[in-house]
Amino acid sequence: MKLSFPLVAIGLEVSMIVLFGFFVKYETEHNPVQQQYGTNATKADKFLELHPLFQDVHVMILVGFGFLMTFLKKYGFSSVGINLLIAALGLQWGTFIQGILHNKGQTIYIGIKNIINADFSTATVLISFGAVLGKISPVQMLIMTILEIAVFAGNEYVVGEIFQASDIGASMTIHAFGAYFGLAVAGVLYQSGLRRQNEKEESVYHSDLFAMIGTLFLWIFWPSFNSAIAETTEQQYLAIVNTYFSLVACVLTAYAVSSLVGKRGKLDMVHIQNASLAGGVAVGTCADMKIHPYGAMIIGSTAGIVSVLGFKFLTPCLTDKLRIHDTCGVHNLHGLPGVIGGLASIVAIELGASKASTRTTMLMQAAALGSSLGTAIVGGLITGLILRFIVCVQPSMEFFFDDSAYWEVPKREEGDNE
Amino acid sequence: MKLSFPLVAIGLEVSMIVLFGFFVKYETEHNPVQQQYGTNATKADKFLELHPLFQDVHVMILVGFGFLMTFLKKYGFSSVGINLLIAALGLQWGTFIQGILHNKGQTIYIGIKNIINADFSTATVLISFGAVLGKISPVQMLIMTILEIAVFAGNEYVVGEIFQASDIGASMTIHAFGAYFGLAVAGVLYQSGLRRQNEKEESVYHSDLFAMIGTLFLWIFWPSFNSAIAETTEQQYLAIVNTYFSLVACVLTAYAVSSLVGKRGKLDMVHIQNASLAGGVAVGTCADMKIHPYGAMIIGSTAGIVSVLGFKFLTPCLTDKLRIHDTCGVHNLHGLPGVIGGLASIVAIELGASKASTRTTMLMQAAALGSSLGTAIVGGLITGLILRFIVCVQPSMEFFFDDSAYWEVPKREEGDNE
Amino acid sequence: MKLSFPLVAIGLEVSMIVLFGFFVKYETEHNPVQQQYGTNATKADKFLELHPLFQDVHVMILVGFGFLMTFLKKYGFSSVGINLLIAALGLQWGTFIQGILHNKGQTIYIGIKNIINADFSTATVLISFGAVLGKISPVQMLIMTILEIAVFAGNEYVVGEIFQASDIGASMTIHAFGAYFGLAVAGVLYQSGLRRQNEKEESVYHSDLFAMIGTLFLWIFWPSFNSAIAETTEQQYLAIVNTYFSLVACVLTAYAVSSLVGKRGKLDMVHIQNASLAGGVAVGTCADMKIHPYGAMIIGSTAGIVSVLGFKFLTPCLTDKLRIHDTCGVHNLHGLPGVIGGLASIVAIELGASKASTRTTMLMQAAALGSSLGTAIVGGLITGLILRFIVCVQPSMEFFFDDSAYWEVPKREEGDNE
Repeated sequence: MKLSFPLVAIGLEVSMIVLFGFFVKYETEHNPVQQQYGTNATKADKFLELHPLFQDVHVMILVGFGFLMTFLKKYGFSSVGINLLIAALGLQWGTFIQGILHNKGQTIYIGIKNIINADFSTATVLISFGAVLGKISPVQMLIMTILEIAVFAGNEYVVGEIFQASDIGASMTIHAFGAYFGLAVAGVLYQSGLRRQNEKEESVYHSDLFAMIGTLFLWIFWPSFNSAIAETTEQQYLAIVNTYFSLVACVLTAYAVSSLVGKRGKLDMVHIQNASLAGGVAVGTCADMKIHPYGAMIIGSTAGIVSVLGFKFLTPCLTDKLRIHDTCGVHNLHGLPGVIGGLASIVAIELGASKASTRTTMLMQAAALGSSLGTAIVGGLITGLILRFIVCVQPSMEFFFDDSAYWEVPKREEGDNE
Repeated sequence: MKLSFPLVAIGLEVSMIVLFGFFVKYETEHNPVQQQYGTNATKADKFLELHPLFQDVHVMILVGFGFLMTFLKKYGFSSVGINLLIAALGLQWGTFIQGILHNKGQTIYIGIKNIINADFSTATVLISFGAVLGKISPVQMLIMTILEIAVFAGNEYVVGEIFQASDIGASMTIHAFGAYFGLAVAGVLYQSGLRRQNEKEESVYHSDLFAMIGTLFLWIFWPSFNSAIAETTEQQYLAIVNTYFSLVACVLTAYAVSSLVGKRGKLDMVHIQNASLAGGVAVGTCADMKIHPYGAMIIGSTAGIVSVLGFKFLTPCLTDKLRIHDTCGVHNLHGLPGVIGGLASIVAIELGASKASTRTTMLMQAAALGSSLGTAIVGGLITGLILRFIVCVQPSMEFFFDDSAYWEVPKREEGDNE
Repeated sequence: MKLSFPLVAIGLEVSMIVLFGFFVKYETEHNPVQQQYGTNATKADKFLELHPLFQDVHVMILVGFGFLMTFLKKYGFSSVGINLLIAALGLQWGTFIQGILHNKGQTIYIGIKNIINADFSTATVLISFGAVLGKISPVQMLIMTILEIAVFAGNEYVVGEIFQASDIGASMTIHAFGAYFGLAVAGVLYQSGLRRQNEKEESVYHSDLFAMIGTLFLWIFWPSFNSAIAETTEQQYLAIVNTYFSLVACVLTAYAVSSLVGKRGKLDMVHIQNASLAGGVAVGTCADMKIHPYGAMIIGSTAGIVSVLGFKFLTPCLTDKLRIHDTCGVHNLHGLPGVIGGLASIVAIELGASKASTRTTMLMQAAALGSSLGTAIVGGLITGLILRFIVCVQPSMEFFFDDSAYWEVPKREEGDNE
């Protein structure tokens, strides 16, 4: 760590400044021929109109994802700290790479959609971060951020521009993509010791409460996430209402199934922290379609059930059989519900719920789902190989799930498990 | 818990889906005769205009109430977890029952006011939850949510539609109602062991800090709560400004009196966490009236004083004399300040501060206060009896204030009191 | 504490109510000659338009500043509790004193700008609070709030009205001012024992996580802080975008330098909690100028580097050589970056980035910086002397950094360092 991390971080920041110097301008500088002041004012007005939705998403990225991962007893500094570091890099790189792709290499004029999309690309990396949490170094995460956002932007371009598929809440392009990308990386970085019970891979009472801060802010602002880039206010309305009702339904089924599969009917904090959110993921793709409020509730209920069952039965199996260790269980919160989201959109279109304003077809939705999964797995495998054999600054197994590998940690005394 | 909880939760969710399938549609589907697109866009615009205020209220419900109750050292999982569960059910049931009442059984078209009102009905249950916190099972809370919201909606209908009373911030219909309903339930569920000092009914250092997260988000967003359903933008303005100044005044008097009644002048965290918010409750009913900023400050100052004195002198007395054990002291934060709010509105109207746009009279305000208190107490007693003798899955006394009754709790070692 | 604190707090609140009774009215009461309803509606509309930005700032003041200071292991109650107390007084007094100054002693009509500016004046005191944290009594803080806001309002009047200087994000008038005022007070209140290692002046694992709640909410909403009082929507747009990109760049350099100067390359939580925010401070003054996104990133990168170096090398030196003990290191988060902000605005104007709509000149910017620093230091010294020799209720050294001086603190058992 001594020199590699500072050099990589400074090098990346200098690169970003250079790229921005050449390619990025203010939205209000666009179209310099048109002189009237009104135009710029209008652009700025549009910016401010969507600003509250953007801020909601921003809270999700920094506080939501950051604190959701603080459940580990000795890895809270890294969870919330590396989360901020990834976000800071991802917001710059995502702004650039998505802008370049959509503008065919021309100057990028920063508007509200650009910074919302940069938050989205960052969310993708943070989902993958959950799969490799505690087993990867900060330098590896910086490199992974660069690689994953590039692949993400490519897939998103294919899905949106070529397939013209509909994925407003990004169940496929962010959630499923981020989960399977992360799982692929986790598979490559796998070490056999992960199969053994690791005392550090547990929570303590207060770390579980910190994680609930993340859960709640994600839950509250998820409707903003799913509606932020809607094209019309009506679609925005639909996306908010559908997400809201999918989430509330999901909570009831997640709690019910958590109790059902628990010892003596007890609830498990891991399920509550994560599966309560699965409804937000699963309704994403068809959030702006007229699926009816009860349709959204059916999607949410299903996601809550599947997510808890995934945590209980699938995650242990992934580690033991497939040698994929998924620290936060992102497969259950983002992977499976993301796939459900894609499939739900196919069903919704079949049932006639598609939007008037788009040419979305079942075939293109299926292609989008396939592309997201395929690109994620291939991209994740290649990224994993690069991280394992080229970047090669992975922490040794004894420092897995332990802040003291990369942080000055305050002395602990007797009560260090509380 | 083994089967009753999952069955009740799943059963309720299935019921909600069925009810929504029959009765709930999108606002944009309303009035299908009118074909022009503009109408739907306008409705969606209105929705988005109030969306930031709604989100503020939503943060209060989930993060504010949820974390405010985490002060107990061994009951944080339940506080924040059951809070989310109640909210998820309440938001669905509240949307339905309020919609049905106001639409005389016709189809409900979901607009922003519907989901704000659903949050309000949920707030009422969460206030009552504070009175019975630690002494009630999840199944009982689900049943209580259904019953209380039904009674709440009935009283709100009477107050608003029949009495035409003014109660924009709902001091009477939410705060006083929720407090006295909860106290009535707590009275019925009372067990004599509660009079003894219970080591679990205490906070630890960090649990008090978690509770402050709740306090602060409630404090910050209270102006949005009191103004969210204002009819005109001018009333919205008044409600925000009045609430803001009532809250700031309340903090100073609450701190002063907490120190005054404390040992050697010391401040008590229970007072700070709760009484700092009493100004938001007490100004609720007349928040949209022209009571002048200094009038709001007088109301807030009074509420801060009364609330701290309530915690110090009244709460112990309630337990010992009336056999009503109020875990969070909701009587001091919501009960007394709610009554002050109702009385303040009568004084304000007498002094000529009523709103131009309503026919609010002193008599109707008094009727509203009486109705809210009466309905709450009778409804709470009946609900308590149902919970005690029909639902009958109350935890045994040794599991009071203890997460381990319903949650898998991480192992604690020596330092489990920190 | 026994009587002095309650008397001072009640006395101040009564004074505020009297002052507001005589001087403060609703904005909608303004210009009573003009009778049409439309005018009031328009004012209320404008209020609501900026309300989301105000709420963001409000979250920063209460949650951001409050939790940022909870890093000390035994001083969390005071950090977040006294923060709320200061805010409650400051919001009232700031509204009054700024209003009186700008209206030449005439009636103040409360609009959105008034309450945003009151939050700003409060922020200034909270910055100074960071310098004296743990070494000052609540009574002293109340008096300091009154004195500092008066001096702040005077300097802000000079900078804005007389020099016509530009300082939208208030790098000079809030951040540099608050830091140097606080350092001056800390210098006067210095006690030689502070030079020794104090076991209480440390964090524990979870207190550092609580502090990150503060950091993240400050980081997320800083763009709203820097843009809230912009005159045009275009300037608001610029302020948001520039602040956003300054902050992201700052994070990368702060992390890099923290690792570079750390033992074996380890990151230090103090740097991460504070220096990650320096970019928001430093870009403040020129946030609404056309400095280009890459220009904002250069300012942010520089601030991140300077801030960490300040924590590492300057803060120990201040204590040892200048006998100024800066508990939170506000010199590194607000002082130095604030000065950088002022200097950056001079460079930006020299390079032609000034705003079309103002008459800002390099000379006036320099005068503003000089005035802010000079007024802060002189005002802080006088305030410090008043606090030390007239108010004289400072805690004794053994109660420094210890909540138990002013709070009922829950019993701790073995694990009290966790």
